[in-house]
Amino acid sequence: MLTPIDFYFDFMSPYGWFAARQIDAIGARFGRDVTWRPLLLGVTVLQVMGLKALPDTPLKSDYLELDVPRTARLFKLPYNPPTPLPANSLAPARAYYWLFDRDPAGAKRLARRLYDRQFAEATDVSVPDVVAETAAETLGLDPAAVLAAIADPQVKERLRRAVDEAVARKAFGSPFFFVDDQPFWGSDRLWMVERWLETGGW
Amino acid sequence: MLTPIDFYFDFMSPYGWFAARQIDAIGARFGRDVTWRPLLLGVTVLQVMGLKALPDTPLKSDYLELDVPRTARLFKLPYNPPTPLPANSLAPARAYYWLFDRDPAGAKRLARRLYDRQFAEATDVSVPDVVAETAAETLGLDPAAVLAAIADPQVKERLRRAVDEAVARKAFGSPFFFVDDQPFWGSDRLWMVERWLETGGW
Repeated sequence: MLTPIDFYFDFMSPYGWFAARQIDAIGARFGRDVTWRPLLLGVTVLQVMGLKALPDTPLKSDYLELDVPRTARLFKLPYNPPTPLPANSLAPARAYYWLFDRDPAGAKRLARRLYDRQFAEATDVSVPDVVAETAAETLGLDPAAVLAAIADPQVKERLRRAVDEAVARKAFGSPFFFVDDQPFWGSDRLWMVERWLETGGW
Repeated sequence: MLTPIDFYFDFMSPYGWFAARQIDAIGARFGRDVTWRPLLLGVTVLQVMGLKALPDTPLKSDYLELDVPRTARLFKLPYNPPTPLPANSLAPARAYYWLFDRDPAGAKRLARRLYDRQFAEATDVSVPDVVAETAAETLGLDPAAVLAAIADPQVKERLRRAVDEAVARKAFGSPFFFVDDQPFWGSDRLWMVERWLETGGW
């Protein structure tokens, strides 16, 4: 049995979404499952790395404004984000890990649907009610149970632990992949992930 | 006549070198000249963007340590850098622009040779004497004239202007390309530059 690909992403990150739309198909071509692992760029990039948020970084912010829609067109993805982008992704990330511990396949379906709502349907999925409603529609979950989970201190702690584990493993961006412990950062590296899977490394 | 590709890089940057070894051949396949334009990451990244140097950035520094030699192997480049990497690239960048205004083809030959000495032959090309000696060997220039140029206030000003122009154009990284005013950042984007040249954009 081949090791699953670990796929780290932030629900706020359009580049993460570009990868989310492609990584399972790439994995499947090489017999690999993909484990989705939301992280928080507010922790990895801002706190741990001590950098600024991309939109607050001169020059890079202009580049992103051009590059994100351009990359979406290249990947033929229907990019249609909310304006402004949500400032955090705590609610979807908490809901994800809460569900992941009970139903990993359902958690991935929820994540996929939330990500699509955010970046293809201009829906702000940082709003707990939106997460709960999406979980109800997608998986038939009780919205009240999802809202309770998002506010549950144990679930908050579960997310913190997941982000700490990502940092301990030195994952920092969105998307960020591990293939057999080889780290790859960026949706512009998907071709390299494929090459690694194809060749077994170089 | 097709517009030349503008290729921005820092002589300190291994990713810039990876691109330098490939970009003229890519341009040639699509009938494009390539204009090499050294910049200074110490200005663009540290001063203008207000970020830290990559080696001083937690998590990313570990990633780079693994990724730079891995990417060199992927591109089949004989990566053999000086240790530690030079802290600045003022001398080669000044020599480049001094020569560029007199002999653009010679300037590119010098840049190529300096870059190779640095990253394939473990030579610290931040040292003015090394730049002068390389210019003498590569182009038959008088080493004393090269040393004088590197120390010349007008040449220093010429480099400052070049970096200011790069910033005004919103180039910030190494490598950084413009193809018909489309910006592309990173040696992991060379495939995208090729696609743009091939298709005329998307």
